[in-house]
Amino acid sequence: MSGTGASHAPGFTAQAAALIGTQYVSTGAAIEPRYLQPARYGAGQALAVVKPATTEEVSALAALAQACGIDLITQGAHTGLVLGATPCDAARHVVLSTDRLRQRFELDPLDRVLRVSAGFRLSEINERLHDAGLSFPIDLSADPSMGGMLAANTGGTRMLRYGDVRANTLGLTVVLGEPAGEVLQLEPAWMKNNAGLDFKHLFIGSNGALGVVTEAVIKLHPLPAQRVAALVAPASQEAVWPLYAAAGARLGDTVSAFEGISRRALQLAVAHGAAGPLPFGSDAPDYAVLLELSSPLAASELDLPQVLENFLQAQMEAGLVADAVVGRDEALWRIRHGIGEGLRAHGHVLGLDLSFARAQYWPFVASARTWLAQHLPQVEIADFGHLGDGGVHFNLVWPHGCAFNPRAFDEARAAMYRLAVEEHGGCFSAEHGVGPHVQALYDRYTPPSQAALAQRLVDVLAPRGGFSRARYGMAA
Amino acid sequence: MSGTGASHAPGFTAQAAALIGTQYVSTGAAIEPRYLQPARYGAGQALAVVKPATTEEVSALAALAQACGIDLITQGAHTGLVLGATPCDAARHVVLSTDRLRQRFELDPLDRVLRVSAGFRLSEINERLHDAGLSFPIDLSADPSMGGMLAANTGGTRMLRYGDVRANTLGLTVVLGEPAGEVLQLEPAWMKNNAGLDFKHLFIGSNGALGVVTEAVIKLHPLPAQRVAALVAPASQEAVWPLYAAAGARLGDTVSAFEGISRRALQLAVAHGAAGPLPFGSDAPDYAVLLELSSPLAASELDLPQVLENFLQAQMEAGLVADAVVGRDEALWRIRHGIGEGLRAHGHVLGLDLSFARAQYWPFVASARTWLAQHLPQVEIADFGHLGDGGVHFNLVWPHGCAFNPRAFDEARAAMYRLAVEEHGGCFSAEHGVGPHVQALYDRYTPPSQAALAQRLVDVLAPRGGFSRARYGMAA
Repeated sequence: MSGTGASHAPGFTAQAAALIGTQYVSTGAAIEPRYLQPARYGAGQALAVVKPATTEEVSALAALAQACGIDLITQGAHTGLVLGATPCDAARHVVLSTDRLRQRFELDPLDRVLRVSAGFRLSEINERLHDAGLSFPIDLSADPSMGGMLAANTGGTRMLRYGDVRANTLGLTVVLGEPAGEVLQLEPAWMKNNAGLDFKHLFIGSNGALGVVTEAVIKLHPLPAQRVAALVAPASQEAVWPLYAAAGARLGDTVSAFEGISRRALQLAVAHGAAGPLPFGSDAPDYAVLLELSSPLAASELDLPQVLENFLQAQMEAGLVADAVVGRDEALWRIRHGIGEGLRAHGHVLGLDLSFARAQYWPFVASARTWLAQHLPQVEIADFGHLGDGGVHFNLVWPHGCAFNPRAFDEARAAMYRLAVEEHGGCFSAEHGVGPHVQALYDRYTPPSQAALAQRLVDVLAPRGGFSRARYGMAA
Repeated sequence: MSGTGASHAPGFTAQAAALIGTQYVSTGAAIEPRYLQPARYGAGQALAVVKPATTEEVSALAALAQACGIDLITQGAHTGLVLGATPCDAARHVVLSTDRLRQRFELDPLDRVLRVSAGFRLSEINERLHDAGLSFPIDLSADPSMGGMLAANTGGTRMLRYGDVRANTLGLTVVLGEPAGEVLQLEPAWMKNNAGLDFKHLFIGSNGALGVVTEAVIKLHPLPAQRVAALVAPASQEAVWPLYAAAGARLGDTVSAFEGISRRALQLAVAHGAAGPLPFGSDAPDYAVLLELSSPLAASELDLPQVLENFLQAQMEAGLVADAVVGRDEALWRIRHGIGEGLRAHGHVLGLDLSFARAQYWPFVASARTWLAQHLPQVEIADFGHLGDGGVHFNLVWPHGCAFNPRAFDEARAAMYRLAVEEHGGCFSAEHGVGPHVQALYDRYTPPSQAALAQRLVDVLAPRGGFSRARYGMAA
């Protein structure tokens, strides 16, 4: 909600304290750094942080903020990567932290659904569900809040098996900006429901721009009885997609992860990360695939390690696989999750969160390589990601040993997006959402008919601005 | 799009013929009955039927209809059960048939996605995909069009395993009503995409009220290598949910169907349908469950029939299962799919398409039984449905032998909805969507905050009415 300036701000903090308690309103130097410091890029500033505990308190704060000309910026665990939840205006931005939205954690084990407040963290949700044999099957390196996962429509490494957050959400409770503070209850615990328009998907993945999600009803999945993984060296980069197709045909959705790791990413994970030694012999392969299988069936009924061995053996015989290490799940995942640390130890990292029709992926990488060779030969590509769902973390690393030129790096970033989106039909934000870090890309690459419709919806739902720094609609 | 009367109608048909060809515009007696005759209830009438072949033709017709004050009613295979696609105004309703929207059938086997025009039927889609080892995993008795499945967000019997149509749609092309004929392209073939607001879910499951879907990009699944089914007699009705929970815990989503069949529905399917003899001994059990397992793994790696036998044996020992017939998939499914025919042979049928939190289901059935015993003892309950996803086809049958009183039957219908929704928190339209047949229920049971938001969206997207007889928003 855009305002008329900072003049009403003192009124806001005092009235907010009256609404939710003085101890839950921080200002100035009393603001803890984590509410201002984003996970990866830049730094923020804010007038205050408010920590409501209930939907009713969020509603009251939303109405108050509008009256005072304050912009509320909803923030969960602050693990987002596009600055959508990072405040940047010391006069008018107030962080609405969801940390204390923890009223509900209501498990229905028969329906396998959980009604949960937005402030719970992913790790805590799954720890609490473990004894019931259930899980919310989002898997990633960070530990976001429930609300943050809904805002970003988190995907993660097992999306090809279980779907993203959107696919596992049955209902929401949302505080709207128009009318300010109106509460929309969308949380029926029905698995099957076609009794009305399905609004909830407008709020999921919209990064807080259309409302504040305070509660959700989510679908749970039985924990798998078995998991087994292999780090596979395909015979060549060209063998990766035939290997993926063979896995689909022979293993179907027994495949719970199909993660790609480029040679450079693997080398850096092993050199700098907590990954342990290179699992292959003397050198890293051109490209590696972390293939994970899962099954609900017990080992007495299904020999899953043997299924994996059989598959890899057949693909070796077919010439698609050069080498493979079947290992303990955790050890192999440590390599995958250690890549980020490995890259940052080696240099300055620019991460692009892209997705493609699979056939476009290698051509894009080739184009990117050609561009860099011509313009910035010192910059390395260290890509990895969710090949199984077409998403990739395409990273550029500027090694610490080379004189750093941030402006040249920014030019490389723009060139990579141009190649990805304009030349290879890719998506500029596969799973990190929209926020200031990619706002210019949204404004540039959203087709006019979609931007116009987004603007029409924003005009209805959040005409004075939303609860986020993400902006949808026509470019200003 | 509401109009000013029938005065412009002749202008519409002549101009429509000029746009798409005379042979694709029918009026009066030349209209084939199937465009007017709905699948189950009532009968319709229309000024004309138009059959465009492309998105551009649909767009031109939408603009023309608005100019002429004509209401276009989009219609696919006309298999819907709520009259949303059945015209009822001989002066102003024109059926926009999607029969000829067949321009695209573009399979990407690597991404496992299909770009398909709205006019293709489900059966044809799956026949064409079969040789590629892929399927669009919606399973039901009817054979709807792609557009109709999107309009109704079809679920079907394997939804618990593969999700509904919504969960398997990546993109749409939609012709909007405002501005009339505007084409919205939402069809990127990305599996992972969080680069903007996700509008498509507003159109999926909105029964044509917000636009005409002309093309879709859908997700495909590898065909399972094995399927095996059993018709199970739980030890009692009370054992059904513990059996469901045990199946989830031990078999996970190896379970591809968990369909419930009440004693009366089973008896009638066997007595009148094409189901063959009762698979159990002398009498039908109180309640039967059709349990189907599927696996992508070959029989050489997984003995799926043995897994099923083991499970049933364990549940017999645990006292949850009294009897079970493991059989050929097709024979058992014939029973399930023969219920509708069996019911109609026995009497007048009222079908309610409900869903519940599972814990509420038996209490609802008990309430319904009590009400009928008091008010209409001759009416029988013959329920069956998708217990695995909480949806149920709750049928009342008025036997042919008893003098039929349609008004009393309507009162029973109203009482059943009241019990389901008001007393047991159920959903009045699990998978059949919204249309005239259930419009009064939408108007009555939609929470005011949801109806108000629906109205705000309708005012933006379809202010002159949509392309359907479904109406969302505030009750008139």
